Amino acid sequence: MRVVVIGGDAVGMTAASQIKRSLGDDVDVIVIQEQQWTSYSACGIPYWIAGETTGPDTLVARSPEQHREHGIDVRTGMLASAIDPDTGSVTMQPVTGGPATRLGYDHLVIGTGSRPRTPPVDGLDLPGVYRVQTLDEGQAAIDGLARDPRTAVVLGAGYIGIEMAEAGVQRGLATTVVDLAPEPMVSLDADMGCLVRAGMTERGVDMRMGEPVRELLAGADGRVRAVVTDAGEIPADIVFLGLGVTPRTELAAAAGLPLGEHGGLLTDDHQRVRGYGNIWAGGDCVEVTDRLTGAERYLPLGTHANKHGRVIGVNIAGGDLAFPGVIGTAITKFCDLEVSRTGLKEDEQDGLVSVLIHAQTSVGYMPDSAVMAVKMIAERTTGRLMGTQIVGGRGAAMRIDTAATAIWTGMTAPELVQLDLAYSPPFSPVWDPVQVAARVLLGKLSD
Amino acid sequence: MRVVVIGGDAVGMTAASQIKRSLGDDVDVIVIQEQQWTSYSACGIPYWIAGETTGPDTLVARSPEQHREHGIDVRTGMLASAIDPDTGSVTMQPVTGGPATRLGYDHLVIGTGSRPRTPPVDGLDLPGVYRVQTLDEGQAAIDGLARDPRTAVVLGAGYIGIEMAEAGVQRGLATTVVDLAPEPMVSLDADMGCLVRAGMTERGVDMRMGEPVRELLAGADGRVRAVVTDAGEIPADIVFLGLGVTPRTELAAAAGLPLGEHGGLLTDDHQRVRGYGNIWAGGDCVEVTDRLTGAERYLPLGTHANKHGRVIGVNIAGGDLAFPGVIGTAITKFCDLEVSRTGLKEDEQDGLVSVLIHAQTSVGYMPDSAVMAVKMIAERTTGRLMGTQIVGGRGAAMRIDTAATAIWTGMTAPELVQLDLAYSPPFSPVWDPVQVAARVLLGKLSD
Repeated sequence: MRVVVIGGDAVGMTAASQIKRSLGDDVDVIVIQEQQWTSYSACGIPYWIAGETTGPDTLVARSPEQHREHGIDVRTGMLASAIDPDTGSVTMQPVTGGPATRLGYDHLVIGTGSRPRTPPVDGLDLPGVYRVQTLDEGQAAIDGLARDPRTAVVLGAGYIGIEMAEAGVQRGLATTVVDLAPEPMVSLDADMGCLVRAGMTERGVDMRMGEPVRELLAGADGRVRAVVTDAGEIPADIVFLGLGVTPRTELAAAAGLPLGEHGGLLTDDHQRVRGYGNIWAGGDCVEVTDRLTGAERYLPLGTHANKHGRVIGVNIAGGDLAFPGVIGTAITKFCDLEVSRTGLKEDEQDGLVSVLIHAQTSVGYMPDSAVMAVKMIAERTTGRLMGTQIVGGRGAAMRIDTAATAIWTGMTAPELVQLDLAYSPPFSPVWDPVQVAARVLLGKLSD
Repeated sequence: MRVVVIGGDAVGMTAASQIKRSLGDDVDVIVIQEQQWTSYSACGIPYWIAGETTGPDTLVARSPEQHREHGIDVRTGMLASAIDPDTGSVTMQPVTGGPATRLGYDHLVIGTGSRPRTPPVDGLDLPGVYRVQTLDEGQAAIDGLARDPRTAVVLGAGYIGIEMAEAGVQRGLATTVVDLAPEPMVSLDADMGCLVRAGMTERGVDMRMGEPVRELLAGADGRVRAVVTDAGEIPADIVFLGLGVTPRTELAAAAGLPLGEHGGLLTDDHQRVRGYGNIWAGGDCVEVTDRLTGAERYLPLGTHANKHGRVIGVNIAGGDLAFPGVIGTAITKFCDLEVSRTGLKEDEQDGLVSVLIHAQTSVGYMPDSAVMAVKMIAERTTGRLMGTQIVGGRGAAMRIDTAATAIWTGMTAPELVQLDLAYSPPFSPVWDPVQVAARVLLGKLSD
């Protein structure tokens, strides 16, 4: 049996490793990878740029050579240029040009990932403007920092934007974040996004919310020198782009594979591309099913990609494993300000009720105790928990996993209040903040 | 209506406040409290002694005066000396002596708490030997530290013992922990207890496990100078007792109220003392039902006491709220070594299977990433999660709440692997350590 994998990162290499481990010599696994790297942590690039960790090698979980030692035929520097589902083959050619080769497959795994959004703004390609999705882009940004910039502008106030703002501050740059949205982190409700904005402002970032970017200007040396918004010109020795990503599915689209309304590949719950028995896809190039609404969403996160890779690997190796969908759990931080979320936002569905409470991360008399806000959302008729958002000091955000587990299992607010959670003064108040939120929510539910 | 409450700490004052808030002037709430304090955090005393926080006022969540302002009649310095369920009355008298008074009640709440275990060892009452359960005892220990001791011995290696060892180390004392058990923390399996012992030894504590204490010796000044075990004499300028507690139920027993095999009061799931319509009890003086086994256990923890107080308060005020039992979730730390547990131990029931894995608290390339061990236990036939134990560096232990929520809701190991948990390099590896444990457990379940 031959399995061809397009894309050598989380989905592709996880699936490839799983298949090779299960089937050994009974399978040939060929991975077509455009870059020279495999299995790297794109999520770590902001921390590399911040100087908190080193790179690029540190961010590589497993190199092409290591994968080859495990019997996986990794072809780096190769570009997949066509998929032919009828004949069961993929065409590939070297990135540097050269003759195309056709590879037949019994199973095809598509893990082509995503690409950064690029709005139609002049100057996004100027020297000094950096994307931070690949290791090469990360290295370019590191090289840019070596030119001793004083001012940084981050375009976009989502997860990557916030992490790049942290990198700017850590590097001692006067840092500005610009976004069209009225508050940072549109995955939060606006009242929680407002707390993120306030926290980042307090910590020295100039937060320019609700300001559309018009253009980027070059200096005499041809490098970026300013970002122009509706409100004026912002000096920028260096610019980081955190404008989000879109699924990279042109190849799949050209082959006639089904795409959803967000542009991602559509799969069944076993990660089989809909309508195809032997084509599989996962990670940043697919849409995922929201367990709470049943709708398809685009949520490109490493945690889903790894789970997809495992699911695909198990199934191709003869197993039967479904991916159960997502509830949108995510976490990030800006310096010591932690942010996390799971489930639905307040206005994402009718009939929801919410509360926003303030509590402490640990008992108030402990020296590290910090303020945290919890927003909790439930179905009014049933009390079923539907969403939670957290913004607060050190130790606040990981509580989202408690809420995510509760939401995943269909727990109600009154049940969460009674849940046997851990308590000790350095770790938590005697009523955990998520339980405090659930208690306050109870009052609203019984109104 | 008159409600009499015996005990002015977590259960009693939570119930009293809840009742007064609900019923206002329609109820008289009288609290009989032996000490001068109410609503204090016994769990905070080790951190006060360590010098991490101040005391005793800081540890008081709400003083008798504050409760009185809310209309609760708090009688400090009063001892309840008899309960008469037939006439519905309690006898009380001043701690300092004086005439007894009889108080009739419509409802009685018993929150008499616990008292330290005192094994039959000579010298436990010597000056320089401190219990750490009440604020007065905490103050005495603080005064003892002012005498500039050099060596500390902690008797007992449970939660309080470990926290007092931390206090000793924080105060710069050469600290020894002595316990009869082969490993510290008998609420963990021995393989995890062993990791706690190793971690504490590495951090400078002399861990004398499996050594029965024979006696405590006094010096020429009449104060403690050494602890004698089967293995010899250990110098001790100061001794802290962390030998656990037993339910304080003599008063209830004398009144004929039902006690369980651990000596705690037995209640129904509304915290009504079994067989009595208007006597309620909670906290450290009752036994609690284990949700996983259905058996009664003695688990004196502040988190249960607070929940019991709320349940009792709601029910006396005319509501209908059940306490759903416990699964034994608990957490503590020794300096930067964190420890937590929930559910059953490996040998607590037949048919369980377990794994012990090592992982990192965050992605390995992050500077604060630390090693952590997770032990996970499931039912062999169903895969249902039954227990989890964690020992590791900073950020490790609070993951127990994810496991506790999963166990509480009856989740299986394969379900936990697929759960949508938060991922970002500073917070977690892409597969959370509890999911890594669940994955490894899957392999064993399918054996």
